[in-house]
Amino acid sequence: MTEATFDGGLPRIVIARAVEQALAEDLGTRGDITTDATVPFDATAEATFGARLAGVIAGLAVAEAAFQAVDPRVGFEALVRDGDQVATAAAVARARGPARALLTGERVALNFLCHMSGIATLTRRYVDAVSGTRARIVDTRKTTPGLRAFEKYAVRAGGGANHRSGLHDAILIKDNHIVAAGGVAPAIAAARAHAGHMVKIEVEVGNLDELAAALAYPIDAVLLDNMDVTVLRQAVAMVAGRVLTEASGGVTLETVRAIAEAGVDLISVGALTHSAPILDLGLDFTGP
Amino acid sequence: MTEATFDGGLPRIVIARAVEQALAEDLGTRGDITTDATVPFDATAEATFGARLAGVIAGLAVAEAAFQAVDPRVGFEALVRDGDQVATAAAVARARGPARALLTGERVALNFLCHMSGIATLTRRYVDAVSGTRARIVDTRKTTPGLRAFEKYAVRAGGGANHRSGLHDAILIKDNHIVAAGGVAPAIAAARAHAGHMVKIEVEVGNLDELAAALAYPIDAVLLDNMDVTVLRQAVAMVAGRVLTEASGGVTLETVRAIAEAGVDLISVGALTHSAPILDLGLDFTGP
Amino acid sequence: MTEATFDGGLPRIVIARAVEQALAEDLGTRGDITTDATVPFDATAEATFGARLAGVIAGLAVAEAAFQAVDPRVGFEALVRDGDQVATAAAVARARGPARALLTGERVALNFLCHMSGIATLTRRYVDAVSGTRARIVDTRKTTPGLRAFEKYAVRAGGGANHRSGLHDAILIKDNHIVAAGGVAPAIAAARAHAGHMVKIEVEVGNLDELAAALAYPIDAVLLDNMDVTVLRQAVAMVAGRVLTEASGGVTLETVRAIAEAGVDLISVGALTHSAPILDLGLDFTGP
Amino acid sequence: MTEATFDGGLPRIVIARAVEQALAEDLGTRGDITTDATVPFDATAEATFGARLAGVIAGLAVAEAAFQAVDPRVGFEALVRDGDQVATAAAVARARGPARALLTGERVALNFLCHMSGIATLTRRYVDAVSGTRARIVDTRKTTPGLRAFEKYAVRAGGGANHRSGLHDAILIKDNHIVAAGGVAPAIAAARAHAGHMVKIEVEVGNLDELAAALAYPIDAVLLDNMDVTVLRQAVAMVAGRVLTEASGGVTLETVRAIAEAGVDLISVGALTHSAPILDLGLDFTGP
Amino acid sequence: MTEATFDGGLPRIVIARAVEQALAEDLGTRGDITTDATVPFDATAEATFGARLAGVIAGLAVAEAAFQAVDPRVGFEALVRDGDQVATAAAVARARGPARALLTGERVALNFLCHMSGIATLTRRYVDAVSGTRARIVDTRKTTPGLRAFEKYAVRAGGGANHRSGLHDAILIKDNHIVAAGGVAPAIAAARAHAGHMVKIEVEVGNLDELAAALAYPIDAVLLDNMDVTVLRQAVAMVAGRVLTEASGGVTLETVRAIAEAGVDLISVGALTHSAPILDLGLDFTGP
Amino acid sequence: MTEATFDGGLPRIVIARAVEQALAEDLGTRGDITTDATVPFDATAEATFGARLAGVIAGLAVAEAAFQAVDPRVGFEALVRDGDQVATAAAVARARGPARALLTGERVALNFLCHMSGIATLTRRYVDAVSGTRARIVDTRKTTPGLRAFEKYAVRAGGGANHRSGLHDAILIKDNHIVAAGGVAPAIAAARAHAGHMVKIEVEVGNLDELAAALAYPIDAVLLDNMDVTVLRQAVAMVAGRVLTEASGGVTLETVRAIAEAGVDLISVGALTHSAPILDLGLDFTGP
Repeated sequence: MTEATFDGGLPRIVIARAVEQALAEDLGTRGDITTDATVPFDATAEATFGARLAGVIAGLAVAEAAFQAVDPRVGFEALVRDGDQVATAAAVARARGPARALLTGERVALNFLCHMSGIATLTRRYVDAVSGTRARIVDTRKTTPGLRAFEKYAVRAGGGANHRSGLHDAILIKDNHIVAAGGVAPAIAAARAHAGHMVKIEVEVGNLDELAAALAYPIDAVLLDNMDVTVLRQAVAMVAGRVLTEASGGVTLETVRAIAEAGVDLISVGALTHSAPILDLGLDFTGP
Repeated sequence: MTEATFDGGLPRIVIARAVEQALAEDLGTRGDITTDATVPFDATAEATFGARLAGVIAGLAVAEAAFQAVDPRVGFEALVRDGDQVATAAAVARARGPARALLTGERVALNFLCHMSGIATLTRRYVDAVSGTRARIVDTRKTTPGLRAFEKYAVRAGGGANHRSGLHDAILIKDNHIVAAGGVAPAIAAARAHAGHMVKIEVEVGNLDELAAALAYPIDAVLLDNMDVTVLRQAVAMVAGRVLTEASGGVTLETVRAIAEAGVDLISVGALTHSAPILDLGLDFTGP
Repeated sequence: MTEATFDGGLPRIVIARAVEQALAEDLGTRGDITTDATVPFDATAEATFGARLAGVIAGLAVAEAAFQAVDPRVGFEALVRDGDQVATAAAVARARGPARALLTGERVALNFLCHMSGIATLTRRYVDAVSGTRARIVDTRKTTPGLRAFEKYAVRAGGGANHRSGLHDAILIKDNHIVAAGGVAPAIAAARAHAGHMVKIEVEVGNLDELAAALAYPIDAVLLDNMDVTVLRQAVAMVAGRVLTEASGGVTLETVRAIAEAGVDLISVGALTHSAPILDLGLDFTGP
Repeated sequence: MTEATFDGGLPRIVIARAVEQALAEDLGTRGDITTDATVPFDATAEATFGARLAGVIAGLAVAEAAFQAVDPRVGFEALVRDGDQVATAAAVARARGPARALLTGERVALNFLCHMSGIATLTRRYVDAVSGTRARIVDTRKTTPGLRAFEKYAVRAGGGANHRSGLHDAILIKDNHIVAAGGVAPAIAAARAHAGHMVKIEVEVGNLDELAAALAYPIDAVLLDNMDVTVLRQAVAMVAGRVLTEASGGVTLETVRAIAEAGVDLISVGALTHSAPILDLGLDFTGP
Repeated sequence: MTEATFDGGLPRIVIARAVEQALAEDLGTRGDITTDATVPFDATAEATFGARLAGVIAGLAVAEAAFQAVDPRVGFEALVRDGDQVATAAAVARARGPARALLTGERVALNFLCHMSGIATLTRRYVDAVSGTRARIVDTRKTTPGLRAFEKYAVRAGGGANHRSGLHDAILIKDNHIVAAGGVAPAIAAARAHAGHMVKIEVEVGNLDELAAALAYPIDAVLLDNMDVTVLRQAVAMVAGRVLTEASGGVTLETVRAIAEAGVDLISVGALTHSAPILDLGLDFTGP
Repeated sequence: MTEATFDGGLPRIVIARAVEQALAEDLGTRGDITTDATVPFDATAEATFGARLAGVIAGLAVAEAAFQAVDPRVGFEALVRDGDQVATAAAVARARGPARALLTGERVALNFLCHMSGIATLTRRYVDAVSGTRARIVDTRKTTPGLRAFEKYAVRAGGGANHRSGLHDAILIKDNHIVAAGGVAPAIAAARAHAGHMVKIEVEVGNLDELAAALAYPIDAVLLDNMDVTVLRQAVAMVAGRVLTEASGGVTLETVRAIAEAGVDLISVGALTHSAPILDLGLDFTGP
């Protein structure tokens, strides 16, 4: 893990496993037949990662790990840090070593870096859109299968915050849970009894009546689902700071500012992780 | 594997491994603490996957596998087949069984289904845009790490075709390879000598001179990199059907038709897999 | 997962992986050479799990999974549920099927069941020792490597509650963190900024001055480390219900009641998972 | 593997796999959120493992591997060797490197070291209790699932010896096998025919008649199950050195000396691995 | 595991892992593109495994597992048992089910079955060559990486016996060990002290002096390395039944009988597992 | 990967996984009990790999990786390169380091090296047998389960070429596919439609009529199955260079020259990978 890593939140063994899986996918068991055929064994090269468009970088340590899994002799130098905003054409990292390894690892390194930077960049746009309000932009569990840790890291790199990691580390009581439990009171009571004291409980509500019902019990947050801005404002007033308020549902770059101005603490945006286009970065060979 | 599967191209063991990994990510080792707390052990339910927007479906067998990895007693009935175009609000599949399993598996099933259907849907838009031309829409290696097989399957479900699976199963000679090998002739010769007879060779060219050089050797396809439509047309004429022609580089829904009309055989589009937004699908509980 | 499972909190895939690993350890790649040599292929048997001593049962679903990984034809019937207190000599489960599979799977099934029941039984003793007080008995991260989920499940089966699952799902600021961050204020601020809104923060304090310092910031719980009962009582008074209070450090069955009566909300006991003796259970062949 | 390792019997790849699994359990995919938030990226530290109580150390190489899996830059120096008896407050090892890595790896390193040292310490007590007799203290297959190799290593570090590793590497014919095979003679014959010439055969007997029957056949050892000391002495006399004698069943620190004095070669003690409390060790930060 | 299995010595989870690995190798993540393209989803077929040449069958349960990993709906009926000698053109098993699955799984099933049957067949030839003597034919650790358990199983199916499974389950002291230990006496003493009582010790000797030296200590077997038949006979006489005698080194079908007649107990043959040609079997489609 | 590697076509992570699996098989979880008992911890040694017979070497990088997985301190120097023909008694590589590691890793290193070199050596014999003709010797999918990549690498090291890697990377239409698809025309059409443009199509034909039928469609190669030399010659004439011609079926060293002289482009030989005896290599300790 180099200092390029934004906040440390990607353990080395987690990166290693993901990188090996991605390389296995690209190399099969036969390897890079084009490079092995055409590039001399002892050729060396230097290559530079450049941003084709402006954006926020995330995933430099993953890119580094990709090259080193191909060949530990590859040197990697980050020129920016995860979370940095870079301009179009900015150089973001440099790799040096066996030319074969640079060519063979290039696509896997870029696929992580572009995907993660795309998420960081989109997150930053949402974060900027609500600047000056109290609202934080948070992600959801609508992530790409297998990449949740990487995507949630990228959200943080973009200035957002993470909702729960998964079903296992926080309680979010939705309508189906309430129906199954026989009401909001028994649902919250069961959740409280089931979970440890370090687990927070959030309850999803669809209208002000449900909100009032939920607020009668000891919870940590309410998810205000698909409410329009007027109702959101009433909800925030009703909560009056007793618990955290999260707006959710169909949030876009167009609507997020108004939602934030309704006074909620958190706005969750599924699109950050399920629909962010990549940030286009490329790798140019810049030296022998 | 049910009949809902479009073309069989996702082995059962590949699906199983991906689904287990995605569940591990969501469940940790502790499981779904909300559902376990609030839903009775013996409650059963029926839930229906519905399309929130129109699009092309892909990934039904993966969704089924997700539920069954949570609890083998879940029954799953596909109402459409992968590759089908569905209308807004269409029901696409139904799951029945233990209510806990339906709630616990829901997000993983949806994350696969929405991601894959998003790719299929975007692919279909490109395919439709070139209808009537000879051009096929193909994918690239710019895929989400860990999901290449699933994304390439989704491209096929959307009517596209697949470029090579990875660095291991076909040869694509790019500029760096040519430089390293000392020219296009030695590069192609080395590739031909290195690869087996069932491996195809494509050469990337950036202008008509490079194209002419490449055509002097026994290759299977040329990648016409970032050429404008006028040059593409000249390139197609120069090739004269001797090898396959692939246009690549910055293709968008706006430009793809003109590129196709230049007469190329293939148009590769990285955005199909690296930047497709999801197709929004939801799971509604429709019965006990 | 059968109804024998206490609270569902062990996903099927988590059980399957642990069981396969334990079987691999016992069977190697050669299998049970004694049973294969001496027991006819088609012999069947019935065997009953019996408690050699009274205690609390945990791990029935794991025992079942162990047999079925050896041979899916083994039938398993739980006679009690996880969390049940059973008397000496009580029958707790019955397995029927190929005699080879029962003999080959016996030890792995028992090793899980005895270990988990031992933890549940010890937990119950602590829980009983504080009955009538407000204190809940909770576990720690001092678990046996590889078995944390199983051990935390067993703690719940014994009537205890779980502290955080690991370093990843809650924040516990200890003295080294405070020193490194430059004080309790910057440590808490950094933690709050770093973690998502669903993550709780607990601060470890060693005396009342540190407690006073920590209470000045928005935290969820305090860990009162190695305080004697008099100080604990003062700490509880100082906290006055604003945050949860956890007593920790050298808790024994002899001391736990007095600690509970000091008024703390939680008492964490490392011994539950790092030093619980097994509950002795055996498997008797009770029929053909 | 450093010289701290007692007898080499833990292959590097076995340690690596166990350590990664334990780290995965503690770090999830998100890592150590407390440390990442509060400890500067470039802070370094020195930390010393100290014994809180006297005991026998085992697992130093595993502790080292745990830190290095978190960050390969951590240096680790063992101050004693596995198998050494240490006094209360003795320093047993020192680690130096990035402070984050020391804090993040601490619990996993300690969980292995305390668990293994606990087993070594308990084993040593049994070994000391029989000193001067011919009896060796041996373990059983009643180990904690997933940790058998580590626990059997710890038994050796404590001066005990290992019984078979699993069902695969030696034959132990028990009552159920004899019944299934149709008698002790056919059971032994079948075992001899089934197993290779490097596999030993032991037969469990419950009384002197069964012992006499077993001794009529070519076997390597007899397990004298749950016999009282008087009967054990008669059994040893009857065997007269022809095969190894193992006493088993309900052995405690109180009874083990008398059993040893009955003249058996081996005394197997399940409690060594299934019920040893940890040896309490801690990690103190002793320098920058 | 069906009754076709010779002696049970291949645990279900061991077979499953090997089969999945072999399928992954053949199917990649894309699957059987020929079959998926050309065979209708709902076509069914019956296929029969036939021996192209006479030989001994081994691996039927593995072949069955291969098909069922492709598609659990495939039915498999063994027509002979592992260890059976079959004539040229004999039908050995029949599979029925989805035609796609039969075609996709065919090669993996055959690769296991032909390889294992080849080893069983060669083993049988050695076994037959020594019939009437006291010698047993045993294998070595010269196995194909990854397949040891399968190859040792096949040796047993061919009538041979297994030497140790690996470096872990028996002691074989060779010349380098003796040199390193400082002589045969300290080497044997160290081995005896290091290993548990269920572990056998064999010593390799190259001449009669070394044999005499080794026999002075308590060992279980001697490996008579590369001795000619005259010396072997003298060695057997010198041992006089006190320990097992194993002849090893350059054994061929031409020389094995004479070696056996020298009176040794065991003859180890590396070629059984490192150089056996396959037994040619094919799969013919015999019905819809 | 050192320069000893023939053509790079074995990715580092592929080698690492195979080596760990082979070591796990040999070491179990207990390790090399003979070496650990008899060889001092700090003894060092030098050992030299020598060819017992002349042949072609393959697998040096795998042997190196085997030692380094046991202990990273082992140094390894290749004295020849993969693909080199060596004489009897030639030294091919030298390893230096901890004596324990050399002894413990020896068998796994040799098992890979002997197996792969055996395949390379047999391949070279076939290649030499057809020298001067246009025919290339190619392998098949009849490989040892789990080792396909290593065996296909060895075929290349021996001067042969690879057929497809598996079912996933090229299309080979056989009789059953043709029957299922309803004829050769629909089979080829379906294959063409299903596969991407970088995938080649070969059709198996059993006689000249089938050949004529296949040649009517756009394919890349024909597999001439089990034809005698006269028919092969006619087939080659009929094809007239339009597609590649592959002879297959029962090819031996005796028949391969005549087949080559019939003018085919490729001759596939299953025996290269399914029945090659090992090349006998040994490891001699040559220094301290």
